[in-house]
Amino acid sequence: MTTKEVADQLVAYCRNQQEEKAYQELYSSNITSIEMSEPMKEVHGMEGLQKKGQWWEENFEVHGTKVSDPMVADNHFAVTFWMDTTHKPSGQRSQMNEIGVYQVKDGKIWREQFFYDKGEE
Amino acid sequence: MTTKEVADQLVAYCRNQQEEKAYQELYSSNITSIEMSEPMKEVHGMEGLQKKGQWWEENFEVHGTKVSDPMVADNHFAVTFWMDTTHKPSGQRSQMNEIGVYQVKDGKIWREQFFYDKGEE
Repeated sequence: MTTKEVADQLVAYCRNQQEEKAYQELYSSNITSIEMSEPMKEVHGMEGLQKKGQWWEENFEVHGTKVSDPMVADNHFAVTFWMDTTHKPSGQRSQMNEIGVYQVKDGKIWREQFFYDKGEE
Repeated sequence: MTTKEVADQLVAYCRNQQEEKAYQELYSSNITSIEMSEPMKEVHGMEGLQKKGQWWEENFEVHGTKVSDPMVADNHFAVTFWMDTTHKPSGQRSQMNEIGVYQVKDGKIWREQFFYDKGEE
């Protein structure tokens, strides 16, 4: 798959809440996933992604998401996500946007990095 | 300035080869600028940016650039750049695309990170 095809397919899966399918089909087993801060600032491999997914599910209820079309540059692409969530421990509901930047190698996503506003800044 | 205004102005300056003006008006003196690899993998402040600019000018001749519209997500935005350059030491001409991700704080760009294919991978 070309980077554009991977990007379009990831966006389609995310729009249909099929993240599991995206992980299985589009991600390299050597994936590195990078957030702005701890916990889960940097995880590796499918096990790392699963741990992060579990942490996310334990901490956030998702009411809605919107996913932009991808912006492609050679073997990288960027997507914006809008999310409406409730932080389960505090009960606080909020909306936020983030940018995900993905690196594709041999037709698979092998690095992703997310950019968003951290609360404390 | 809002993040969208900073993004639009940066794009306008880059399209007009007015990077110096962009640094003066849009960048924080606390800027952190991050590349994929050495040299100049991470520089700080205006002095760091100047050093990086000098290194760039010594090593690359730019024949043409194209700059996309920005993709904005709260206090971050992303832009793609297409560049046609000649690497001066080797004389090799090549075209590449990259994604720049910018973080805005108090109306100024205080972090930028670039994503592109490294030759050695």
